[in-house]
Amino acid sequence: MAGAKLEPRDPDWEAKVRESFARQTFMETIGGRIRALSPGRCEVELPFRADLCQQHGYLHGGVVTTIAANAAGYAAFSLMPAGSSVLGVEYKVNLLGAAEGELFIARGTVIKAGRTLSVVECDVQAMRDGKQQPVARMLATYMCLEGKPDQPVG
Amino acid sequence: MAGAKLEPRDPDWEAKVRESFARQTFMETIGGRIRALSPGRCEVELPFRADLCQQHGYLHGGVVTTIAANAAGYAAFSLMPAGSSVLGVEYKVNLLGAAEGELFIARGTVIKAGRTLSVVECDVQAMRDGKQQPVARMLATYMCLEGKPDQPVG
Amino acid sequence: MAGAKLEPRDPDWEAKVRESFARQTFMETIGGRIRALSPGRCEVELPFRADLCQQHGYLHGGVVTTIAANAAGYAAFSLMPAGSSVLGVEYKVNLLGAAEGELFIARGTVIKAGRTLSVVECDVQAMRDGKQQPVARMLATYMCLEGKPDQPVG
Amino acid sequence: MAGAKLEPRDPDWEAKVRESFARQTFMETIGGRIRALSPGRCEVELPFRADLCQQHGYLHGGVVTTIAANAAGYAAFSLMPAGSSVLGVEYKVNLLGAAEGELFIARGTVIKAGRTLSVVECDVQAMRDGKQQPVARMLATYMCLEGKPDQPVG
Repeated sequence: MAGAKLEPRDPDWEAKVRESFARQTFMETIGGRIRALSPGRCEVELPFRADLCQQHGYLHGGVVTTIAANAAGYAAFSLMPAGSSVLGVEYKVNLLGAAEGELFIARGTVIKAGRTLSVVECDVQAMRDGKQQPVARMLATYMCLEGKPDQPVG
Repeated sequence: MAGAKLEPRDPDWEAKVRESFARQTFMETIGGRIRALSPGRCEVELPFRADLCQQHGYLHGGVVTTIAANAAGYAAFSLMPAGSSVLGVEYKVNLLGAAEGELFIARGTVIKAGRTLSVVECDVQAMRDGKQQPVARMLATYMCLEGKPDQPVG
Repeated sequence: MAGAKLEPRDPDWEAKVRESFARQTFMETIGGRIRALSPGRCEVELPFRADLCQQHGYLHGGVVTTIAANAAGYAAFSLMPAGSSVLGVEYKVNLLGAAEGELFIARGTVIKAGRTLSVVECDVQAMRDGKQQPVARMLATYMCLEGKPDQPVG
Repeated sequence: MAGAKLEPRDPDWEAKVRESFARQTFMETIGGRIRALSPGRCEVELPFRADLCQQHGYLHGGVVTTIAANAAGYAAFSLMPAGSSVLGVEYKVNLLGAAEGELFIARGTVIKAGRTLSVVECDVQAMRDGKQQPVARMLATYMCLEGKPDQPVG
């Protein structure tokens, strides 16, 4: 599929992304963490936990969407200029199979990095008995808010 | 907007929905609960908590999506026949404003209840200083799995 | 559902919308026209034609989407300031029933009119034997390009 | 991205797809045709025409969506069993750039081929001065109607 130009516009892109991710209290609550990071790409992983499930004992679709949205949003943020923050506009998720496994991996890839809007796709896989199984696919839009730094100024 | 026929096909629809919701461990983890329920409609509410936030201290979009998907999915399930379970197919969410408030309310309404597929829309509002503020809108598809009861047979 | 503030910011909003619509050659090709127009709302209608069909003789889903996107986009454009143009960002369409009928009506309503982005929902109905039947539901995002007038300056 | 099993279940898949496509009068009206076809993949191309445009003289987004939906739908149909027909459930389209060019190519690829539902992604590119430029990305769901042949029985 068409790739976007994956040139960071902020030399501090990596620290900026990791600090922003670290401020998300919800990630700590559910146990999500950055697995891999490069300009325009972000992977988020989350180990299965019995307190994150839907009615049949699989990982809740809301948790799947949460890690997908984080992988997508930080993939977009990694390409944004210094002094800006990232805002989720919309996302669409297709659920492809039961979210059953020991570990879940969401991989976000920017497919268009515009000045204002970025389009990102994200793939979520479950690790089950050592094999990857497709769980979800996301197509999402993020907005760059220039002049509104993500980091709170103390 | 066009309404669907909101006639339940299962006389036990309400108990079925409440029991299924109660088996979602993730709802207990984040504090979501059913606020209102009628055939083809379901409201889920969730009080703000500081451990459910994104990087700016607002409710995480994944939590917003989670309560929206539950309101939508159980609205659909309320109209499904006895002995079936509900499967999320896909959803699309537009984020309309900062998820800032003391309480969040997701209202799902079935707009088409087909034999196999149901289409549901869901509106999420924040209660902020006693006023409702729009947070998100969802348009979602759910599938009825006939002959696969949602309740585990002990 | 939550309504947006439907105050036009351009006194010439109606002429602007009608002129822009009239420049769409594709609308003339397929026979679409504005049925009703008010700030934040636009209805587009299209009579059935045998040369606009899919493989079973119903109106093609692409035609359904076209009139929905026009109703949605011009609903958004009606609220944008003078000197700006409207850009489609993304849309999602759920097909609710066979596009069978004599006339198709798409009704777009702005649910959020932001400075940069607008969110619009659109409902498409078929007139069949004098009755409306649901055909599709759309949830869409449009962008305001300020300082880029829609009208070509001659 | 994760690939689906691309094994056709109907030995006549190619004739079935081409015949169904040929019955779409709208494809003839706008000049769309199959460019390439294999199990689980379908490419549709459409030359630019001045009577298919939006208000700025670019190809109308509805035409872009039409060829994307056809590429996606026939990619899904190519994997469906004999005696079934394909029904569009929903699609989401992100518009990535101006639909400006001499020729437009939509490439649909099945990412999940389920018994009832298939998930397909589709990429649309414009050929402009001999180079491909991204126009749109679609993520779509199609349903298999078993026992309802697509071909009309004369």
